[in-house]
Amino acid sequence: MKLIIVGGDGFCGWPTSLHLSNLGHEVIIVDDFSRRRIDKELNVQSLTPIFELSERIEAWFELTGNVIRYVEMDISTKFDDLLNLLEEEKPDSIVHFGEQRAAPYSMKCTSTKNYTISNNICGTHNILNAIVESQRDIHLVHLGTMGVYGYGHEEPIPIPEGYLDVKIDTIDGREITDSIVYPANPGSIYHMTKTMDSQMFQYYAKNDKLRITDLHQGIVWGTQTELSSQDERLINRFDYDGDYGTVLNRFLMQATVGFPLTVHGTGGQTRAFIHISDTCKCIEQALIHPPTSGDRPLILNQMAETQTLSDLAKLVQSLTNCEISYLPNPRSEAERNDLNVRNDLLRSFGWEPTLIKDSLLQEITEITRHYSDRADHSKIPCVSYWTKNNEPADVSHRAENNEVAETIS
Amino acid sequence: MKLIIVGGDGFCGWPTSLHLSNLGHEVIIVDDFSRRRIDKELNVQSLTPIFELSERIEAWFELTGNVIRYVEMDISTKFDDLLNLLEEEKPDSIVHFGEQRAAPYSMKCTSTKNYTISNNICGTHNILNAIVESQRDIHLVHLGTMGVYGYGHEEPIPIPEGYLDVKIDTIDGREITDSIVYPANPGSIYHMTKTMDSQMFQYYAKNDKLRITDLHQGIVWGTQTELSSQDERLINRFDYDGDYGTVLNRFLMQATVGFPLTVHGTGGQTRAFIHISDTCKCIEQALIHPPTSGDRPLILNQMAETQTLSDLAKLVQSLTNCEISYLPNPRSEAERNDLNVRNDLLRSFGWEPTLIKDSLLQEITEITRHYSDRADHSKIPCVSYWTKNNEPADVSHRAENNEVAETIS
Ligand SMILES: NC(=O)c1ccc[n+]([C@@H]2O[C@H](COP(=O)([O-])OP(=O)(O)OC[C@H]3O[C@@H](n4cnc5c(N)ncnc54)[C@H](O)[C@@H]3O)[C@@H](O)[C@H]2O)c1
Ligand SMILES: NC(=O)c1ccc[n+]([C@@H]2O[C@H](COP(=O)([O-])OP(=O)(O)OC[C@H]3O[C@@H](n4cnc5c(N)ncnc54)[C@H](O)[C@@H]3O)[C@@H](O)[C@H]2O)c1
Repeated sequence: MKLIIVGGDGFCGWPTSLHLSNLGHEVIIVDDFSRRRIDKELNVQSLTPIFELSERIEAWFELTGNVIRYVEMDISTKFDDLLNLLEEEKPDSIVHFGEQRAAPYSMKCTSTKNYTISNNICGTHNILNAIVESQRDIHLVHLGTMGVYGYGHEEPIPIPEGYLDVKIDTIDGREITDSIVYPANPGSIYHMTKTMDSQMFQYYAKNDKLRITDLHQGIVWGTQTELSSQDERLINRFDYDGDYGTVLNRFLMQATVGFPLTVHGTGGQTRAFIHISDTCKCIEQALIHPPTSGDRPLILNQMAETQTLSDLAKLVQSLTNCEISYLPNPRSEAERNDLNVRNDLLRSFGWEPTLIKDSLLQEITEITRHYSDRADHSKIPCVSYWTKNNEPADVSHRAENNEVAETIS
Repeated sequence: MKLIIVGGDGFCGWPTSLHLSNLGHEVIIVDDFSRRRIDKELNVQSLTPIFELSERIEAWFELTGNVIRYVEMDISTKFDDLLNLLEEEKPDSIVHFGEQRAAPYSMKCTSTKNYTISNNICGTHNILNAIVESQRDIHLVHLGTMGVYGYGHEEPIPIPEGYLDVKIDTIDGREITDSIVYPANPGSIYHMTKTMDSQMFQYYAKNDKLRITDLHQGIVWGTQTELSSQDERLINRFDYDGDYGTVLNRFLMQATVGFPLTVHGTGGQTRAFIHISDTCKCIEQALIHPPTSGDRPLILNQMAETQTLSDLAKLVQSLTNCEISYLPNPRSEAERNDLNVRNDLLRSFGWEPTLIKDSLLQEITEITRHYSDRADHSKIPCVSYWTKNNEPADVSHRAENNEVAETIS
């Protein structure tokens, strides 16, 4: 297959590009390097020393003889360039990782809110618009997030593969039912853009019969895959800062540098996880199992396991002897939630997940301990707030809690 | 009240600004004049000779002594200016008409699709973001459309005021129910932006406790209100072109210049309508009945009556002796649909709608006949297509019909 990987220089995109190139597919990466720019803006860097994309690609060619090409392009602002690329390259599929993906960053200030909206919405829309205009039957595989389901439902109803059967009414004794998109409950501007992406997918599948797969992914953990560990120049990024670091990777980092792990509330919050090497394998599966027809997008829940935050903290503690500090929870969320995620379809494609309990120690020895001298301890705490502080007294119905934007999803 | 009216130079915004100014409110119009620019781009003009906003405002001051101020600003790109305006003016409420509102225009070509997305989504988001940042408890009244509900449900379930009670599951014999946002089924890029706006409203109401009223408006017909007919310089716009003209106004125009009215299919399609003077009154009601707390937006169905297209055509025929031509329907839509719209809450505020049957003749004599010499007949047919023509043969599952984008919603 000929594939365009948008965001192929990022945390998920780079190992996926290697994985797909290794399988013999022709890979063209499109990236605007905004992620590297934001690292500079936040004055942080990946714990692992990542190389420039051109160097990564050269190393890959040296090692394997496989060619990965790349184009520097901001897909959210360069529609004509994107369309030209599709018309010239005629890809079979596009894998779309190219969005601003940190919830805390999306809540940081007015300009990061606006950037997240315009980058993610206009970028995704440009891809859809360009596919239609190219008049080619290109399959789009998009990375969404499990976070769009929200974690707030009081009832332990299972989270389906995107669509929910509901009963709407009874007319003349007949039950009126419908299969609806699972009602979204986004918890940040970032998550909201994913629910808006999903509305665009519904529309373009229905109106233009585009074939779209939306992967609602859990929290990705780990750093390296078999392929990326072959050469230091191929090393993947590891984010541990308060904006881009995600919960498990941050726990490992805190344990390594001697910070107590911070668990808000009881730690009974349950989240879905997947290892980075499984991200690559799931995307491979998504590419070979496109929806057979447009009409509505195929939605898969791309996760391997669910864990509570306190269980994760205890697991890290058992491996590192670190301390855990339980802090009051500033979020108004359930103390404890179940997360019963259905992903029968993705699993039916046949893929064996890497589990946290089996691979966490390796992550600690090979990554967090190995590179701990590169860590900037001052970047570990969270600094983004979920709602505005200093609310004026008269806005009495507004949220009371100034919630720290910890990246747990 | 001090009010900012975004899009106050437009078809609905101008008479609403007069209405609210006349009630004694302080009105500041914000408009980027994109609507006037698009008229030039499409080489069309309002049937009625509209004056520049500065002249309109001057005439209003001469007539009434009421001051309406205005600021030229593109709210979708000038966030900082918008925020400054809120901080300086400290409005009580914002009425938001400022979007690209023609479905056919939104489907015309890649650039009008992209423009509709970025103008409407970034504009609406900038308002929400600026309200939060201003730390003021500003009530936002937004104009949405009845079209977001879609007209496709096979079952005659009533359209509620935004939210639908559904049964999701039965757990241990208990019914699990939820009140969800009515599942959207947008029929164009324009309508899709309104469903995406609605997701942003849900989020900002929940997260930041913003008070938001979303008015799901029917198709607006008519031209003048009592206030706008006081002086020719106050005259409102009348669009009849294939992109911006809406169905009833276009029927009147066709009848006046001797075009047969075109009804696609049986004409059994039912739509919701409201007269322009009722738009003004409903917005007045929305402003004095804000939701009492944030949490979720108040959604009102702003419409006065429903009509089938064939009944409307026959009514116009009875007044003008025009011909009606029934053409095959290129849309894959139901031949006939019921539209049972609930708007008890808006009606409970007490407002007497103007009905089509009572006021249509006046519209014909005072507007379409009066200004018929200004009509450019070549602009009456529709030229925007709903899906791409010349689909390549291999995209066999894509839509077969190249559907003409008639503005019926
Ligand atoms: N990392 C996770 O835990 C996780 C979990 C669920 C879903 N996801 C989703 O997977 C995708 C990839 O995530 P990631 O962790 O690799 O993020 P990342 O930030 O490391 O990578 C995103 C890449 O996209 C590029 N990009 C962003 N905007 C672009 C634009 N307009 N044009 C071109 N390139 C652009 C960035 O430069 C970066 O290289 C995201 O959409 C994210 O929402 C990630
Ligand atoms: N006319 C109808 O039948 C109808 C029906 C339902 C809903 N609505 C909604 O009501 C609203 C007003 O409709 P209308 O018929 O008056 O449309 P219109 O195009 O006549 O008016 C919109 C006004 O907003 C301005 N505008 C657009 N983008 C802007 C931006 N980024 N910054 C500042 N100003 C901007 C335009 O210049 C124009 O003056 C729209 O949101 C529309 O979707 C209209």
